[in-house]
Amino acid sequence: MKLNWGMIGGGEGSQIGPAHRLGALADGNFTLSAGALDHDADKGRAYAQRLGVAPDRAYGDWREMLAGERGRNDRVNLVTVATPNATHFEITKAFLEAGFHVLCEKPMTMTVEEGEEIVRVARAAGRICAVNYCYSAYPMVREMRALVRSGQIGRVRLVVTNFSHGHHGDATDADNPRVRWRYDPAMAGVSGQFADCGIHALHMASFITGNEVETVSADFASTIPSRVLEDDAMVNFRMAGGTVGRLWTSSVAIGRQHGFDIQVFGETGGMRWASEQPNQVYYTPVGGRTQIMEKGEAGLSSDAARLSRVAIAHPEGFPLAVANIYVDLAAAIRGEARDGLPLAEDGLRSMAAVYAAVASARADGAWIDARPPIFR
Amino acid sequence: MKLNWGMIGGGEGSQIGPAHRLGALADGNFTLSAGALDHDADKGRAYAQRLGVAPDRAYGDWREMLAGERGRNDRVNLVTVATPNATHFEITKAFLEAGFHVLCEKPMTMTVEEGEEIVRVARAAGRICAVNYCYSAYPMVREMRALVRSGQIGRVRLVVTNFSHGHHGDATDADNPRVRWRYDPAMAGVSGQFADCGIHALHMASFITGNEVETVSADFASTIPSRVLEDDAMVNFRMAGGTVGRLWTSSVAIGRQHGFDIQVFGETGGMRWASEQPNQVYYTPVGGRTQIMEKGEAGLSSDAARLSRVAIAHPEGFPLAVANIYVDLAAAIRGEARDGLPLAEDGLRSMAAVYAAVASARADGAWIDARPPIFR
Amino acid sequence: MKLNWGMIGGGEGSQIGPAHRLGALADGNFTLSAGALDHDADKGRAYAQRLGVAPDRAYGDWREMLAGERGRNDRVNLVTVATPNATHFEITKAFLEAGFHVLCEKPMTMTVEEGEEIVRVARAAGRICAVNYCYSAYPMVREMRALVRSGQIGRVRLVVTNFSHGHHGDATDADNPRVRWRYDPAMAGVSGQFADCGIHALHMASFITGNEVETVSADFASTIPSRVLEDDAMVNFRMAGGTVGRLWTSSVAIGRQHGFDIQVFGETGGMRWASEQPNQVYYTPVGGRTQIMEKGEAGLSSDAARLSRVAIAHPEGFPLAVANIYVDLAAAIRGEARDGLPLAEDGLRSMAAVYAAVASARADGAWIDARPPIFR
Amino acid sequence: MKLNWGMIGGGEGSQIGPAHRLGALADGNFTLSAGALDHDADKGRAYAQRLGVAPDRAYGDWREMLAGERGRNDRVNLVTVATPNATHFEITKAFLEAGFHVLCEKPMTMTVEEGEEIVRVARAAGRICAVNYCYSAYPMVREMRALVRSGQIGRVRLVVTNFSHGHHGDATDADNPRVRWRYDPAMAGVSGQFADCGIHALHMASFITGNEVETVSADFASTIPSRVLEDDAMVNFRMAGGTVGRLWTSSVAIGRQHGFDIQVFGETGGMRWASEQPNQVYYTPVGGRTQIMEKGEAGLSSDAARLSRVAIAHPEGFPLAVANIYVDLAAAIRGEARDGLPLAEDGLRSMAAVYAAVASARADGAWIDARPPIFR
Repeated sequence: MKLNWGMIGGGEGSQIGPAHRLGALADGNFTLSAGALDHDADKGRAYAQRLGVAPDRAYGDWREMLAGERGRNDRVNLVTVATPNATHFEITKAFLEAGFHVLCEKPMTMTVEEGEEIVRVARAAGRICAVNYCYSAYPMVREMRALVRSGQIGRVRLVVTNFSHGHHGDATDADNPRVRWRYDPAMAGVSGQFADCGIHALHMASFITGNEVETVSADFASTIPSRVLEDDAMVNFRMAGGTVGRLWTSSVAIGRQHGFDIQVFGETGGMRWASEQPNQVYYTPVGGRTQIMEKGEAGLSSDAARLSRVAIAHPEGFPLAVANIYVDLAAAIRGEARDGLPLAEDGLRSMAAVYAAVASARADGAWIDARPPIFR
Repeated sequence: MKLNWGMIGGGEGSQIGPAHRLGALADGNFTLSAGALDHDADKGRAYAQRLGVAPDRAYGDWREMLAGERGRNDRVNLVTVATPNATHFEITKAFLEAGFHVLCEKPMTMTVEEGEEIVRVARAAGRICAVNYCYSAYPMVREMRALVRSGQIGRVRLVVTNFSHGHHGDATDADNPRVRWRYDPAMAGVSGQFADCGIHALHMASFITGNEVETVSADFASTIPSRVLEDDAMVNFRMAGGTVGRLWTSSVAIGRQHGFDIQVFGETGGMRWASEQPNQVYYTPVGGRTQIMEKGEAGLSSDAARLSRVAIAHPEGFPLAVANIYVDLAAAIRGEARDGLPLAEDGLRSMAAVYAAVASARADGAWIDARPPIFR
Repeated sequence: MKLNWGMIGGGEGSQIGPAHRLGALADGNFTLSAGALDHDADKGRAYAQRLGVAPDRAYGDWREMLAGERGRNDRVNLVTVATPNATHFEITKAFLEAGFHVLCEKPMTMTVEEGEEIVRVARAAGRICAVNYCYSAYPMVREMRALVRSGQIGRVRLVVTNFSHGHHGDATDADNPRVRWRYDPAMAGVSGQFADCGIHALHMASFITGNEVETVSADFASTIPSRVLEDDAMVNFRMAGGTVGRLWTSSVAIGRQHGFDIQVFGETGGMRWASEQPNQVYYTPVGGRTQIMEKGEAGLSSDAARLSRVAIAHPEGFPLAVANIYVDLAAAIRGEARDGLPLAEDGLRSMAAVYAAVASARADGAWIDARPPIFR
Repeated sequence: MKLNWGMIGGGEGSQIGPAHRLGALADGNFTLSAGALDHDADKGRAYAQRLGVAPDRAYGDWREMLAGERGRNDRVNLVTVATPNATHFEITKAFLEAGFHVLCEKPMTMTVEEGEEIVRVARAAGRICAVNYCYSAYPMVREMRALVRSGQIGRVRLVVTNFSHGHHGDATDADNPRVRWRYDPAMAGVSGQFADCGIHALHMASFITGNEVETVSADFASTIPSRVLEDDAMVNFRMAGGTVGRLWTSSVAIGRQHGFDIQVFGETGGMRWASEQPNQVYYTPVGGRTQIMEKGEAGLSSDAARLSRVAIAHPEGFPLAVANIYVDLAAAIRGEARDGLPLAEDGLRSMAAVYAAVASARADGAWIDARPPIFR
């Protein structure tokens, strides 16, 4: 049986809406049954119906949707929250409290306190609150995780990760509203580029190694002077177990398209993965040759095999990584164990790291505890 | 409104079934409404129902499906034929004649005569008969096509294309039934690797340049001696307008995973694309520097823009190329013009080229007319 | 003790002169002791003296140099012939007959008969006649050769090699004398691009596998209509032992800078090397992962280790591949065995293959014996 | 006329000796006229003579060489100092004071004070004291420098550079004397990996942009616990004019062979270069496509053109980058202006940055002035 799925945000013309719809629908696990897709209520209702939602479930806003869905027998099994960042907390909390499973876009909240609240609410409600760290659902990221966690490269000494692009590098475009808000504290909060892209990379470091980030030391820069928040950041970190971390993120790295990569170095080997060529992992055993691991090759971990749809060397890309989040959500909703899903705890850890990095940058790079208070 | 879609073949455990289902469902254009998914009737019926098909439309074989669907008001708008190669002709012909649109897997037929028959039937019925040359639906292939056809590189002098892998290179595995049949004339017909992979490359040469293949000169080899049909082939060709073509295809190129690439060289520039990195095209103007074109960059042709789902540098892969075939099919079924869809005429041209290449290889490389008789 | 070296051709402003001087001098084996560097006798004498040659050994032409050197006690140990192609035969023959060792630029001769004559003369004189197939002297080419010949990939089924660039792709530059002569039979002989670049690739196929080319089937094209000789060629071949070969060479492949690469596929693995990244070989065992072999890594063959000068991942390039030819020549002149030196027999085989390919292209691709008559 | 050249250190079996000899001899500017090549005087004398040095100029140690050369009319024009790091200062100073030009290996000195002393001595003597930052002499690095300094990418906002390898990543090899000394303060001084590799990257940042490093904030780690000095370091920096810098260097990054790369991002574009593919620069104008610039292409700066020896797409590697340092030294000794030579001032700046980074790492990442006192 297909699961019923509802979406908040992601209206016509958004980038993120189609990615979620493709992700939810691609594998036949979900039906789009309800939606409050647009801040313009009429446009949202009309668009939802064009997407096949029944008129009575095409809602004008999220409160209307909450009210409408909570009493139905066929209520949606999962709600995706893809609204502006500042609204994630309120909506996610409300739906969790009403007993819905939620997939929230990142960042899950704007503050650490809100993040802690979401964790508490999700736990109390016994509901899944997933966060869309979708890069973690690429098959070869899962393979890297399985290998690293099984000891393939020994104790992990060092993680080096970058998430840098140049799409905000044009100063003449800096006042474009689609760009400007990211560097405006009134809209983006305490951090610009690190909160936008850097937390994907930071999550990945923990996701692959299984070690949590404990402390950070950061250097933030606003290379375009009109910006209040950083458009370039370097964050050094230390993880549980002593792993050293280095994370560079930038939005002014002109010529880098979407350069998210991660390198993990351990006692007996190293591995690297890059989002622009997501179907390979480069693995080097200490003293040996670099080997190119391919999505779909024989002998991959069950997680990597399960989340790949077509044969070796047929590339699978970003939309299917998002789809893999939905695959795991469907399984989890149906009661199967899925330990790779990024959850509210991860969203909280990201927010704690953002605040710690901001504090460090303001304190001349001093090392700051990056753990959420409730996890210390 | 969603279109009704039916599938023949692609049962549980097949590679191709999931690719088609994802392709058809990803964009919300189709509903899987009917299916005859397996040569084992009971298994096929059960699997179809698990995929959400109503019991009365979960058929035991294609004849049953044809009988069941032809009389319905809500009959399927499109039938995908993904059965063993030798059955494509019969099934495709029958559904076309009954007024269904068809998407047929390649090769469309086993002989030139059958191919001509399909073209005639499709024309007489006024139905779409598409062939799944899905590589042609990658956004950056469409971009390359748009640029080449608009004269960006001048008259095309030369096309060089390879489709070579090494997955049949293990002689100890050569008797594995999943490998062996491809080199057995009783099952595969007159050609092995060229008919399997080479025709994708040959189609692409015409697809991008707009020029048809007129003559071929081939060298076939069975590098594993137990094989009757070729596992490696070189096909030189000439296209309308004088373009020179070179096509290498192999299944014993150990280390190549899925090496399909195409290079097009004209009077004022060159371009290349490779299926393992499908989101870029490398373009070099004569006397200038190579430029890296990216899926999602500003200024792409409408076709390339339309068939891309996520932002620049977020890779899109093979399953979404298949999905793009369904996007265009949905549009065409709804009456919109789509000039990029590979059609029965293309499937016929491939089969004519296969027979010409086989004849050339047997005749010491002599140049042979590769045009279908009805197109001469 | 340093060896005395003389050079014919390679005057001021030539590309090839500096490459040979750097090659000969880099490792301290040779001193430039004599030279006839320019067709303008005065300019040649002056330039030689500026390069440190004593006035009495700065000659006006090769005949003067032959006369001057043959009687000296300290006569040059090696003569490099880097003159226009049509003069190679006469000069090389004369110096061999006079008892000098010779390194001749490719092509060694303009005809098969001349090639056979050089082989006979070199053998009779007991002198080394090397031909500058310098790509064969890259350390990682030597490694590939050592591995393939030792059976690392089993019997070689298939060799695929390309040597294609786009530097003659500009039709508006086609009448430039530096470009035009290559396509003019009066100056270039029977073949253009294949004789210029293709023979490097054909030599490499035999060099690595140890198998000689026996038959060829060729397709030549003059894609710029004003050209008499081919600017693009496909040559299929068969080698001793049944190895299948495919060689594409082009000078109109705009966007390819200097695309010389070779892929060798055997029963138990495949390897590839490319001249633009000459310090790596990609090796894939059948059923296994691709491994990146690096110049300078531990465990390379003695030949590869000996011909590398700096540590792993410090790239070494084209000029030092030329230098490696001189390293082996110095060793051979001093009486040490060097089995990797390309010799007159190789130069002859190239010329026989050129004539066979030309004959095949004229005969509609018919298969032609490519072996020199004296080796049949 | 050739210049006379002498070498101290670089004895038989060293890596660095052959690189310098090839570098000095390749272009015919220098003759190896004197040497004190080995700490074992007899071995050094014998080896020098085998390399062609006259017996009376094959010295037992550097003091003997200084005494022997200073009085000769044909004394060496240039002395290369390639001895253990701790001896660079004493030897370099002595030869400069005696009026010789010197090329010193990096690091030029072990302390800032020594560095300042070398600068003073060189200035007082009016002699060239070059430091072997040889990566700066690659043609395409010079091109990048010429373009950046001419404003091609506008004001430089950001420099990101890495110099990371994994060759010291094997803990079981950590006590190998060839590895261990680098992490032992008694032999290596205050810094391990940053002083060894990092200073190449830091020099490059200034070399290309023309901006000096003013402050640094560092995070050092000894990921192999037995090491006192760092084997991994992150150094953030700020340059004159406000440019932000990020430098990562590691010796435990298993799988990275010799990963030195630099990315420069400005107001109107970005560029990157990597030492493992040194013949290309990737350039992206803001809002435009990435272009691949090739060594040897038309229109390069005079510096890049002058320092390249063979045609486009014929790779030139590390030994010829070293040779380019000697090319410029020969020119400078002959009185021609060469503004690209790395000099004592650069060596001093490196040492000041090393001490500042060490101080910062010890002070929890605090920002420290990295300028040499005499330049503040």
